Amino acid sequence: MRPITNVSRVFAGKRILITGGLGFIGSNLARRLVGMGARVSIVDSLVPEYGGNRRNLAGVAGRIKVHVADVRDWPRLPSLVRGQDYLFNLAGQTSHMDSMSDPQTDLDINCRAQLAILEACRLHNPTIRIVFASTRQIYGKPDYLPVDEKHPLRPVDVNGINKMAGESFHLLYSRVHGIAATALRLTNTIGPRMRIKDARQTFVGVWIRCLVEGRPFEVWGGEQLRDFTYVDDAVDAFLLAAARPEAVGQVFNLGGPPRVTLRRLAEFLVELNDGGVFSVREFPGERKKIDIGDYYADDRLIGRKLGWVPRTGLREALQQTIAYYRSELRHYV
Amino acid sequence: MRPITNVSRVFAGKRILITGGLGFIGSNLARRLVGMGARVSIVDSLVPEYGGNRRNLAGVAGRIKVHVADVRDWPRLPSLVRGQDYLFNLAGQTSHMDSMSDPQTDLDINCRAQLAILEACRLHNPTIRIVFASTRQIYGKPDYLPVDEKHPLRPVDVNGINKMAGESFHLLYSRVHGIAATALRLTNTIGPRMRIKDARQTFVGVWIRCLVEGRPFEVWGGEQLRDFTYVDDAVDAFLLAAARPEAVGQVFNLGGPPRVTLRRLAEFLVELNDGGVFSVREFPGERKKIDIGDYYADDRLIGRKLGWVPRTGLREALQQTIAYYRSELRHYV
Repeated sequence: MRPITNVSRVFAGKRILITGGLGFIGSNLARRLVGMGARVSIVDSLVPEYGGNRRNLAGVAGRIKVHVADVRDWPRLPSLVRGQDYLFNLAGQTSHMDSMSDPQTDLDINCRAQLAILEACRLHNPTIRIVFASTRQIYGKPDYLPVDEKHPLRPVDVNGINKMAGESFHLLYSRVHGIAATALRLTNTIGPRMRIKDARQTFVGVWIRCLVEGRPFEVWGGEQLRDFTYVDDAVDAFLLAAARPEAVGQVFNLGGPPRVTLRRLAEFLVELNDGGVFSVREFPGERKKIDIGDYYADDRLIGRKLGWVPRTGLREALQQTIAYYRSELRHYV
Repeated sequence: MRPITNVSRVFAGKRILITGGLGFIGSNLARRLVGMGARVSIVDSLVPEYGGNRRNLAGVAGRIKVHVADVRDWPRLPSLVRGQDYLFNLAGQTSHMDSMSDPQTDLDINCRAQLAILEACRLHNPTIRIVFASTRQIYGKPDYLPVDEKHPLRPVDVNGINKMAGESFHLLYSRVHGIAATALRLTNTIGPRMRIKDARQTFVGVWIRCLVEGRPFEVWGGEQLRDFTYVDDAVDAFLLAAARPEAVGQVFNLGGPPRVTLRRLAEFLVELNDGGVFSVREFPGERKKIDIGDYYADDRLIGRKLGWVPRTGLREALQQTIAYYRSELRHYV
């Protein structure tokens, strides 16, 4: 079943803006949309600590308009959103630790700029269709597993609070101002084009870098359960959410079987890499304070409502990712 | 039972900062603390659309240090919080409608400045004790009544989203950084020194102004149930929350019996005023979009944990309020 083939015609010839479009998920989305014949523009700040990387557009750069701009630069927003049919809003600061050491920057990007983007849409392009990249982080430490969309929101770090506010603004503008928006609460997403320089985007990135470079990596804790979405499946979800009218005003979890412990994930990576070494250590104190314990999503709602199913197993996801960084390593470190 | 007498000694000689201290609840709190022998400083922006009014300190102004400053003016915050024993953090933009027409200002005050205040405390006075004025608005439209503290947070307007984030920051800083903070989720609070120029703080303000001026007032909807806290009782709660170690990191609803419909409240006001006229009309469209329907709080948790009980009945609350504005009207319009 490839539900996504149904939506490819939706985007042909359409004008599409992707914030954070040089980043991990944004660039994979941009590449897919270009393949569908969409007219894609990207906004990306290329802040070195974030996910943007021009290499992510290799092979398609000539078919995508790139604005190096920061969503905190409000005066630029009206001209960027004007005339667009779709906005995939993925610009964000993703590091939980950075959100604790520099909380105002996290707020300015994940909360304040989101409101500015929505205001720009309200005033300059109220018929735009928005899909917002939210995160499981807004749930905080789960009361129960798997976590469905009704789970209370009780974020455990500054990043989670600001993403919660950012998501809430999108749903509010959808309900009150009629700016059609959908929010996807992403779990750990993995695949080609993710940041591997450090753990700012995902710890899996830095593990894979170490593996490919032949260096040992560290697993913190190890027994926490997590689920993972392969980036192509996440892209499917963004496209479905944008294409389907019934997704307007809704929130959907993304997940992906199977749930695994971090230790098991590390073992699996070593196996697929044909070698590698890791050590398991206790959580550093600062990190432990904002840890959420086990998490995995109940993602049946988006399956039922939009027909989304993760098509990529964990083995294939990890294999594709390792293969990508084996050949592309030098562009990502 | 007057639990508050137990805490009066706690504050004698203590250094206390009240943000929004020229406003409605802030000034009543300041007056009470001065009476207990506390050394009270106030920060207030005196923005004309907000609650600050120098008249609110009549009779005690000489015993309170007033800084006319805006919490959005970050560089001033370190010197303000340094050396204080307690921070009652009440500065806020309260108008739901203004938050929809000027969302960024609401964000900058209710969300961004709150984080700046907490950062100032973390860096310059980490042993300060904070009580934050949160609001029932963060619950949104109730799933059930009465609303307890476990009710999901699903705010229906920009103000509610920003207050939710502001509250979350306080609880996070308490949990992660050890900045002892408590949040009180206020319902409609009424009493002397509230804003009556318009409905920006509470619709009851503008009703009372009309009554005292002998003009008719409008009741929108009319059948919504609400509960009300008299300001002296709210002040009790702030003091208890600050005094009791078991309140650290906690959230408490405030309420007050009896719940009444707005129509019944209007009738009661007319009766206590010995005359007055009101008309009931449908909600204006813009306002209806962000209405929450019926609301009343389950406030048993703060009763159980801190011994708070609202001591003032609705009749006395309204009588005191009418009497105050009969003699003080010219200072508030």
